[in-house]
Amino acid sequence: MSFTLNDLPLRDDLRGSSPYGAPQLDVPVVLNTNENPHAPSPELAKALADAVSDAALTLNRYPDRDALALRGALADYLGHGVTTDQVWAANGSNEILQQILQAFGGPGRVALGFEPSYSMHPIITRGTNTEWVAVPRGDDFAVDTDAALAAIAEHRPSVVFLTSPNNPTGTALDLDDVRRIAEAAPGVVVVDEAYAEFRREGTPSALTLLEEHPRVIVSRTMSKAFALAGARVGYLAAHPAVVEALQLVRLPYHLSAVTQAVAVTALSHADELLSTVADLRAERDGLVDWLRGEGFSVADSDANFVMFGLFEDRNRVWRALLEQQVLIRETGPDGWLRVTVGTAQETAAFRAALLRATGRR
Amino acid sequence: MSFTLNDLPLRDDLRGSSPYGAPQLDVPVVLNTNENPHAPSPELAKALADAVSDAALTLNRYPDRDALALRGALADYLGHGVTTDQVWAANGSNEILQQILQAFGGPGRVALGFEPSYSMHPIITRGTNTEWVAVPRGDDFAVDTDAALAAIAEHRPSVVFLTSPNNPTGTALDLDDVRRIAEAAPGVVVVDEAYAEFRREGTPSALTLLEEHPRVIVSRTMSKAFALAGARVGYLAAHPAVVEALQLVRLPYHLSAVTQAVAVTALSHADELLSTVADLRAERDGLVDWLRGEGFSVADSDANFVMFGLFEDRNRVWRALLEQQVLIRETGPDGWLRVTVGTAQETAAFRAALLRATGRR
Repeated sequence: MSFTLNDLPLRDDLRGSSPYGAPQLDVPVVLNTNENPHAPSPELAKALADAVSDAALTLNRYPDRDALALRGALADYLGHGVTTDQVWAANGSNEILQQILQAFGGPGRVALGFEPSYSMHPIITRGTNTEWVAVPRGDDFAVDTDAALAAIAEHRPSVVFLTSPNNPTGTALDLDDVRRIAEAAPGVVVVDEAYAEFRREGTPSALTLLEEHPRVIVSRTMSKAFALAGARVGYLAAHPAVVEALQLVRLPYHLSAVTQAVAVTALSHADELLSTVADLRAERDGLVDWLRGEGFSVADSDANFVMFGLFEDRNRVWRALLEQQVLIRETGPDGWLRVTVGTAQETAAFRAALLRATGRR
Repeated sequence: MSFTLNDLPLRDDLRGSSPYGAPQLDVPVVLNTNENPHAPSPELAKALADAVSDAALTLNRYPDRDALALRGALADYLGHGVTTDQVWAANGSNEILQQILQAFGGPGRVALGFEPSYSMHPIITRGTNTEWVAVPRGDDFAVDTDAALAAIAEHRPSVVFLTSPNNPTGTALDLDDVRRIAEAAPGVVVVDEAYAEFRREGTPSALTLLEEHPRVIVSRTMSKAFALAGARVGYLAAHPAVVEALQLVRLPYHLSAVTQAVAVTALSHADELLSTVADLRAERDGLVDWLRGEGFSVADSDANFVMFGLFEDRNRVWRALLEQQVLIRETGPDGWLRVTVGTAQETAAFRAALLRATGRR
């Protein structure tokens, strides 16, 4: 008899589950994981290689486990008076979120979020043996603040997840709502701003709340606007006491010297990397207009993706797009699909494929 | 009133704790964290930079979340018939161990180890809300197999940690003992072989047990023999079902494209990187002989460090060494100190400093 997963002492709640992750399929137009379609330039690739060449000469030594140079560079990038001791970095914002839950969650504690939202929030919550409470968003995908306050009063969560702009809906939060939730929440309030750089003119960041609300944590990533998904650099800004707490649970030397060197170098090329953001925002707004013009329902988007519908059988549309070599994501509330904003060429391919997939052309 | 850690909903068992990690002090002779003293060559640094330069051009995309190329290269390096599907990799062996506990530990479950041993085992165990049971080693720092079997029968641990060679004592395990423990243990048995490449002639690796014992997991690292502590690459070899289990708990895209490229390139230069191992083993054996010749007690070592004593006031000796610019580690059972094997020059500096610190010269 062969040995299988069932012969191992797997945690009960993992039995029957599948590894998280969007299908990685090899097609020409990949618009399913909200990557930035613009690759680093050859000049930046050279700068990154030079930085790694320098770092390599001491790779026999452990890295700076406090990543001070990187945290300083991130603080400078964020502005808003954020200082090095308010910043923490890890291998992707997923690890940031996991460390937050390791410090503030755990058995007997609750984390609360507003669904639909980033599907890793409940996965990481449960992975740290924390109870997950989901509060539904309204029909406009906004957080219903009154419902939020009632749920906070009922469940007393030690961690609240807000997501702005929200994934997969693209919805940004009103800061007054964040403020009311932060005032009511008994624990920390994580504002996941992975897509913050893509927000529309006038949409604020929760970074502006840090001074008045020491239990607010703003998480960010270099995966999206910085076009560095492959480098795995997530970070947060918060009160220095939050950073102290995470230093109690972080694995020692969690962030490699190479990652630190790559991220610092990328931040010194921020202008180049972020130059794509304005184009992508314009491309997104055009895509939203076009979809609405074709009669689709479209959620307002402050991110680099657009959620659209409504489809009686969204899987059929998703497959019809894939047959035309366009990969998008089957996620979000039933009837909706999510497409990442790609290059103008990729978006054009998506538009043409969607028209055929839905019988419009 | 200022806001502090006490105003945050920190997990109760973290209150009052300090971040893990040896002091990082800037002195000329650093022999405290079992790093390999030999830095990568300029040629290797160039090869690593070239690999990163290539990887950089697609850094806007997420990495291969299954790290197949790296796992294949690690399988080739390990030999013993190990295949890609038996290998898993993460950001340092600490993350490997954390993933093992996330899959197989958790509330209501027990992990068991034999102390003194690697101090991260209990920290990571408790960090995943798993109960830690410590069984004391004998006076010779070996695992007392009868005591081990009794403890396993009593506590029914879902995870057993063995460490061979053991840190901080340097002690390797007899494979017959590992076999008896693996047969008795109801869950997985992790043999932490972080220092395996340094073991003395004739000391076997638990890799040879994988075929007959599908619940044995051998964890390894590129931090020590490969002299890549800064690159954070840990890995394991086990039954493919173990790898499947870890894929259920790993954070998606946990291992960056840069880390994967660096590690694959380093493995293609394994001969160069491992050429230092023979020198370090000879240096270690010479250091053990010298310490014994000077009348110190010394634990047999199969690692790149040596535990020696006995001191009535080990902190006084540690400080006296530090005053002479030699940093070693105050760790292990009371009365003992641990010194990493450095270059011949570093070891000479340590010897001279120790003679003065203990009033022998």
